[in-house]
Amino acid sequence: MSRALEVVGERWSLLIVRDALFAGSTRFSDFQKTLGIAPNVLTARLERLVEAGVMERDTTASPTQPRYLLTQAGRELAVPVAALTAWGDRWAAPGEPPILFRHRDCDAPVEVAVRCAECGQVPADDVVAAIGPGMPDGFVEQRRRLRGLS
Amino acid sequence: MSRALEVVGERWSLLIVRDALFAGSTRFSDFQKTLGIAPNVLTARLERLVEAGVMERDTTASPTQPRYLLTQAGRELAVPVAALTAWGDRWAAPGEPPILFRHRDCDAPVEVAVRCAECGQVPADDVVAAIGPGMPDGFVEQRRRLRGLS
Repeated sequence: MSRALEVVGERWSLLIVRDALFAGSTRFSDFQKTLGIAPNVLTARLERLVEAGVMERDTTASPTQPRYLLTQAGRELAVPVAALTAWGDRWAAPGEPPILFRHRDCDAPVEVAVRCAECGQVPADDVVAAIGPGMPDGFVEQRRRLRGLS
Repeated sequence: MSRALEVVGERWSLLIVRDALFAGSTRFSDFQKTLGIAPNVLTARLERLVEAGVMERDTTASPTQPRYLLTQAGRELAVPVAALTAWGDRWAAPGEPPILFRHRDCDAPVEVAVRCAECGQVPADDVVAAIGPGMPDGFVEQRRRLRGLS
């Protein structure tokens, strides 16, 4: 997760991705309009997202007003974005949700859920973490000393 | 999502929550050990998480070394945390995942997935956003002018 946050762990970055995903924003002026973000900050964030492979700059239609398009990596941020939105609607915002997520094909509501390969949908509380194959050696002992990791 | 990011939209905050969720960290010293975070930053982040209702300070065992425990709101951050981790493992980190998420009851792997109420699991790409009942009036027209919102 730490690597994910190096790419999108800054408030504006995820809001830019959200508007690219769900509000159809592609141009600098689109993001500026919906987010009210300072131009220099927006420039820096868009550049970082391009560098990180989350967006690509498309100048085919207009070299001076490029479109910023999500890559496959960027489109897959829909899952964390929808999960954070659902959490915010439930715990951090008063009233009804400002945005609803729906399935493009049938218009039914969608939700982000934790699925167990054996049991199907399970509560978020029932998720535990285990050391994976990519954990650096030095970290394993340190983490074993803390509860909850096997 | 903007409200969610006001609470956890800062790199350290989500890493603190992650370690509380999955590494069994509860005390100041636990978080310091696993995150290598500066003490003054850690103090500020823990206070913010308590204020926001994500953690509570428990001094019953030791008044001078309180435990920081996740509230229900905090535990439900497991969904966005697991979604961001999965994205980071796939797109932002080389090699194998350092942490695997499993279902406590049966030890099978879990994943965070987008579920349509009608169709079951659907690809993240198939999610669209619509204006919800809580969208402030002033925003509706502005957002309608952008593609993708109905």
